[in-house]
Amino acid sequence: MKKIINAPADFVDEVLEGIVLAYGDKVRLSEKNRRVLLNNQPIAGNKVGIVTAGGSGHLPVFLGYVGKGMLDGCTVGNVFASPSAAAMADMIRECNHGAGVLCLYGNYGGDVLNLDMAREEISFEDDIETTVALVRDDVASSPAATSAKRRGVAGMVYAFKIAGAAAENGKNLAEVTAVAEKALANTRTMGVALTPCVVPDVGKPTFQIADDEIEVGMGIHGEPGIEVRKMMSADEIASTLLEKILADMPISNGDEVSVMVNGLGATPLEEQLLVYRKLHKILQEKGVKIFMPHIGEFATSMEMAGLSVSVIKLDDELESLLRAPASTPFYTNSNK
Amino acid sequence: MKKIINAPADFVDEVLEGIVLAYGDKVRLSEKNRRVLLNNQPIAGNKVGIVTAGGSGHLPVFLGYVGKGMLDGCTVGNVFASPSAAAMADMIRECNHGAGVLCLYGNYGGDVLNLDMAREEISFEDDIETTVALVRDDVASSPAATSAKRRGVAGMVYAFKIAGAAAENGKNLAEVTAVAEKALANTRTMGVALTPCVVPDVGKPTFQIADDEIEVGMGIHGEPGIEVRKMMSADEIASTLLEKILADMPISNGDEVSVMVNGLGATPLEEQLLVYRKLHKILQEKGVKIFMPHIGEFATSMEMAGLSVSVIKLDDELESLLRAPASTPFYTNSNK
Repeated sequence: MKKIINAPADFVDEVLEGIVLAYGDKVRLSEKNRRVLLNNQPIAGNKVGIVTAGGSGHLPVFLGYVGKGMLDGCTVGNVFASPSAAAMADMIRECNHGAGVLCLYGNYGGDVLNLDMAREEISFEDDIETTVALVRDDVASSPAATSAKRRGVAGMVYAFKIAGAAAENGKNLAEVTAVAEKALANTRTMGVALTPCVVPDVGKPTFQIADDEIEVGMGIHGEPGIEVRKMMSADEIASTLLEKILADMPISNGDEVSVMVNGLGATPLEEQLLVYRKLHKILQEKGVKIFMPHIGEFATSMEMAGLSVSVIKLDDELESLLRAPASTPFYTNSNK
Repeated sequence: MKKIINAPADFVDEVLEGIVLAYGDKVRLSEKNRRVLLNNQPIAGNKVGIVTAGGSGHLPVFLGYVGKGMLDGCTVGNVFASPSAAAMADMIRECNHGAGVLCLYGNYGGDVLNLDMAREEISFEDDIETTVALVRDDVASSPAATSAKRRGVAGMVYAFKIAGAAAENGKNLAEVTAVAEKALANTRTMGVALTPCVVPDVGKPTFQIADDEIEVGMGIHGEPGIEVRKMMSADEIASTLLEKILADMPISNGDEVSVMVNGLGATPLEEQLLVYRKLHKILQEKGVKIFMPHIGEFATSMEMAGLSVSVIKLDDELESLLRAPASTPFYTNSNK
């Protein structure tokens, strides 16, 4: 499989360099650690800092959401690999503006381990309060009874947006953490994969899937899903994914949600819109109102074909925070 | 190849339905012709109308740019096929707000023929002044001596944005047409393709390309390019494309440009950023300033892997129009 890269070993550093060259008005690299991307826009004194961390290969997750109204900082590891605890500690220090730092990130072993170490280091060496909110929106990755084991996928973008807006509004660390937890508790995601992707320094597909098959519930690193099925239509995919989400988080007549159809990399926007169309119709029939749908590539797996559907149940507070302005390399919202 | 669709014959109509369900605050379907998408936001009386037309399969081109600050209307045909003259005439009538209509579209045989017929019908039956600006930015599609034969590709997005802002500013039809022509004269694009795409009702790849080869200058419908080469690095691709662009449109120390790196469908954002990185460095070395880079998927060919590079040379007027606000399904700009 062909990839538009230079030396595989330089891949992540060159991506970071590219982001900063393109969006230097919004983001900058830390002087202390070149794997840490920071917001470069004016930051109100005493704003709560929000940081994330994870493997590369998922753009716009995570680097693409650093900026005003979302994340203060992000550090990335190699493709699909956790960044180091040292980089995380550097990032937390730089993103503390005097009001503490919320660490908001996906529930993956390496990331959790390294961030625990980073927070421990910070608690010994620095006078910075930190909190954690773990993203566990992937319904397919564990049953409801063990939902604490679930992985974090595209639904994290809603949490970045909502927590980011609360921090911009001057909320304190406990309040920002609480609203992030509320957003996460109200978010579910389910995905399908049609093709694998290729990690640059591996150079071959991450898994195999037949030409007429689709895997329901596959993770964004190729983690096995719930079932392999014969290829389905757009309508069947939408119904299947939404059914599994609603079985886990009941939504009823009069509720308001936002829906994200997230392309994993190679799936055309046209196909994402077909899935959105069916989701919209099902939710409309149930009397559910849809606010600010998100359709496009928000959390990818390189050039994997497939998509995920996320649903977040909104209340007035969450809706208002989702609507708030944001300015990052790959998420811009001008609403007031 | 697997596609997330329903019946292939319903593909385009369902995409249109999906766009309107998702972005009904920004766009609506015409009551008279369900293949015509219209701006659904408040329109100043006597604003010049701007319309485009072309085949489906290129989202966000064209439907994704209908809305405030860009296009008043768009009609699409089937995948990679021209819409009808009748649909174009319906669209022009609906997009005339009393100040005439600019038809701004790519130089493809079917589109040109049908739009000529539509304008002829309008000129006989209606009292609507229309003008034409043809997008011909694809350097690979014809030598400089016969540049009038060139096809229109991703560079058209700059023309939509700039002409749209001029119309919002109250410019008259001649002025909007003139600034569109200036933008087009200042824009060049070159692309590379790594894989073909699949048209839904054909169901097989549009062309063949070897696993270790890349085609330089391929068109967005799979039109043959300039040369097939062994796969190149990101830096080599950036250098090669920019060299061909600059050979056609000299840019020198002190000039200002905007640069678009446009993914054709399956190429990860990471890889697009690597290409941007190299372009930025080359232009910086030449003393060229870059304003508002555009990186992402702006004009695709379904799930084709590859990308194009567009360069538009800016003056104060073009920069100010590019910077102006816009609100469409897939292009939002909040700058003032």
